[in-house]
Amino acid sequence: MLPAQLLQAPEVHAFNPPRRILMGPGPSDVYPQVLAAQARPTVGHLDPLFVGMMDELKRLIQYAFQTSNEMTLAVSAPGSAGMEACFVNLVEPGEKVIVCRNGVFGERMRQNVERVGAVAVVVDNLWGECVDPHAVEAALRAHPDAKFLAFVHAETSTGALSDAKTLCRLAREHGCLSIVDAVTSLGGVELRVDDWGIDAIYSGSQKCLSCVPGLSPLSFSPAAVAKLRSRKTQVQSWFLDQSLVMGYWGSDTGAKRSYHHTAPVNALYALHESLRLLALEGLQQAWRRHAEMHSVLRLGLERLGLEFVVEEAARLPQLNAVYIPEGVDDALVRRRLLNDYNLEIGAGLGALAGKAWRIGLMGYGARRENISLCLRALEEVLG
Amino acid sequence: MLPAQLLQAPEVHAFNPPRRILMGPGPSDVYPQVLAAQARPTVGHLDPLFVGMMDELKRLIQYAFQTSNEMTLAVSAPGSAGMEACFVNLVEPGEKVIVCRNGVFGERMRQNVERVGAVAVVVDNLWGECVDPHAVEAALRAHPDAKFLAFVHAETSTGALSDAKTLCRLAREHGCLSIVDAVTSLGGVELRVDDWGIDAIYSGSQKCLSCVPGLSPLSFSPAAVAKLRSRKTQVQSWFLDQSLVMGYWGSDTGAKRSYHHTAPVNALYALHESLRLLALEGLQQAWRRHAEMHSVLRLGLERLGLEFVVEEAARLPQLNAVYIPEGVDDALVRRRLLNDYNLEIGAGLGALAGKAWRIGLMGYGARRENISLCLRALEEVLG
Repeated sequence: MLPAQLLQAPEVHAFNPPRRILMGPGPSDVYPQVLAAQARPTVGHLDPLFVGMMDELKRLIQYAFQTSNEMTLAVSAPGSAGMEACFVNLVEPGEKVIVCRNGVFGERMRQNVERVGAVAVVVDNLWGECVDPHAVEAALRAHPDAKFLAFVHAETSTGALSDAKTLCRLAREHGCLSIVDAVTSLGGVELRVDDWGIDAIYSGSQKCLSCVPGLSPLSFSPAAVAKLRSRKTQVQSWFLDQSLVMGYWGSDTGAKRSYHHTAPVNALYALHESLRLLALEGLQQAWRRHAEMHSVLRLGLERLGLEFVVEEAARLPQLNAVYIPEGVDDALVRRRLLNDYNLEIGAGLGALAGKAWRIGLMGYGARRENISLCLRALEEVLG
Repeated sequence: MLPAQLLQAPEVHAFNPPRRILMGPGPSDVYPQVLAAQARPTVGHLDPLFVGMMDELKRLIQYAFQTSNEMTLAVSAPGSAGMEACFVNLVEPGEKVIVCRNGVFGERMRQNVERVGAVAVVVDNLWGECVDPHAVEAALRAHPDAKFLAFVHAETSTGALSDAKTLCRLAREHGCLSIVDAVTSLGGVELRVDDWGIDAIYSGSQKCLSCVPGLSPLSFSPAAVAKLRSRKTQVQSWFLDQSLVMGYWGSDTGAKRSYHHTAPVNALYALHESLRLLALEGLQQAWRRHAEMHSVLRLGLERLGLEFVVEEAARLPQLNAVYIPEGVDDALVRRRLLNDYNLEIGAGLGALAGKAWRIGLMGYGARRENISLCLRALEEVLG
C-alpha cells in the first residue's frame, strides 16, 4: 500500500507562447519547416531509418563547415558543451593554450582551459575589436611550447569578426592546433574549415542555422583526432568523450552504431532540416544574403543616429551591436519592443551590459520584413 | 570576392519518419501533446514569458520527484549528462564513493567517479539482481571514510528495481550523501526524494515522462548544495557547473535570471507539457497504471513461454527483460517487428546483448493497445 500523502501537483496550464520576432543574439527566428520537422514522430535512436538520417546529417554538417573531416557530428547539448568538448578532448593537464579574448566567449574559453588543468596564455583585445594577428604571432613566438591557439571567429558579445584564416595559418606555422568558436559565424559569414586548416571547431544550432537551440555541430581535423587518440590521460568528461561518442555517430558512413547516450532524436530532425535548407539556398548565397541585409539594417540604424560598437571592417553582418543613446532607458525600450511589437532585440553582455543593444540578423531572421519592422519600431519607441 | 569553389552541397530530402510504436528501453512513445508543444514558436531564453514557464517547470519537476529542493531543474542534455552533473559537482578528487553495480549504468557511475579523480569502491550484484542492502551496509562499515553512496534505482539494462528508501537510509546512517539514478524510474514507480532522503538525483526525459529525448531533470538536497558550496576545488565542467547554472534557473522563484548557456527552449516546452500531463494524471495513478499494464504484459509473455531475467519481487513494471528463446534469431525478430509492424522492442545491452529483449512500458507507451499489438506480433513472428 502506498502512503496516501504526496506533495500536491501544481496547477499548470499548457504553455502557448506568442510568435516573437527574434532579432537578438540567438535564439534566432526558427524556420517554420524546422519546427514542423521537429514535431515528427520520435523513432528509436538505433532505428535504421534514424541512422540513415544521421548519415545525411553528418554530410550536411560537413558541407556547412566546408570540411571532409570524418569526425564531424552534433554534440547533444548547446554550444557551450561544444566548446567544452573541444577542450576536454584535445587539451591535457599542463599543456599550454594561447587564448584570444575580445569578449565573453574568449573568456569562457580561458575558463575551459583552466578547468582541464591546462595553462592559458591570454592575448587580449578590447571588447569590440577583432583578434589582432600581430599580438597572436608575438604570443606564439614567446611561447614555443604552446600546443593550441583558441579564438572566437565571431564574438557574439560584441559583433566582431576575426580573421580565422590568418590566425589558423599562424597556429600551424608555430606547431599549434587551432580551436575555433564558430557559434555565431556558421552559415552567416564565410567559413572554410579545410581551406583554412581549422583543427577543432564547434557551433550552435540557434544562430545562423535558424534551428531550435540545444545542439552543437562539431568537427575535428585528422590532426585533432590524432591528438585525441594519443592522449596520455583520460578525457575528464564521460558524456563529451568523443572517442566514445564516435562509436555511435560512426567514423565511417554505414558503420554499425553502438549505444553511448540516447540521442536527442527530435532536435536532430530539426538540425537536419535547417541544414538541408542551408544546402538548398547554398552557402555563398546565405553569406551574401546576410551581408545584404546587414547593409540595409546599417543604413537604417545610422539614420536613427545609432552608432556601431565595432568598426566597419570587422563588423559581423549577423550581429549588430550599437551603443544605446545617452539618456535612453535600456530595459524600457527592450520591454516596449517585446510587449508592443513582439520584437526581441538583445541586451548588452558583460562589459557592454546596459551600454549596447545587439540586433541579430541570423539565418531565417535575416529578412527585409524583419529589418523594416525593427527600424520602424525603434523609431517609434525612441520617439 | 569569394573564391568560386566550395565543397558541393549534398542532395538530401526532408526526413519523414514513420509512426513507430516504441516499446524498447527508451525513447518511449511521446505524447502527441508533447510533440505539439515542442513545435510552438521559439521565444528568447530570457523572455519574461519563457522565464515564467521555467518557474512552472521547476514546480512540475519538484512534484515528479516529490521534493521541495530549491535546486531542482533540467540539465540541457541527456540523462548521461545529468549523471555527470551529479558527480562533477559533488565529488572532489580523492574522495571515496561506494558505487553499486548491477548493470550498465552502475558501471557508468563508476567511470564517472574515476573521471573526477575520486576513488570508487564497487559493490557488485549480478546482472538482473537488485542492489543488495546487506552488501552495501558491509561496504559502508568497511569504508568509514566514504563520502557518497551511488546507485541506480531502476537499472535500464536489466529491469531490476532496487530499494532506494533503504539504501538512502543506510547512506545517511553512515554519513554519506546519496546519488541516485532515476532515469527509468521517474514517473513509472514510487519515488519520493524528500521522504527517502535522496541527496542528488537525475532522470531522463525520454522514459516514463514520454517526452522527447535530450533533457535530464535533476535535484539536489540542501545537504548536497552545501557540499557543492563548500568545495575546495573548482567543478571540472563549465557547462555542468550547477553553481553557474543556478544563476539562470534561479534558486528562488522570481529571481532575476542571468545568462549561462542558451536554454534548449523548445525541448523545455516539451518537458513542461509532459510533466503537466503527469501532474494531471497524478503520480499515484501513473504508478498504478504502470503496475497494471505490466501484469497484463507479463501474463502474455509467460503464455508465449518467455522467461523474465529479473525475479518477480525486484521487477520493474516499465522495463521487462526476457530471455530470447533458444534457437531464435535475435536480430531477425527485432527487424521483422520493426519493418512489418512498426514496433520497436529493445535489444539486450552489455552482458545481456544477444541474450535478452527489453520490452518497455513507459509513460504514454504503457497502454493496452500497445501490449496487445506487441504480444500478437511476437506470437506471429516467433511462429
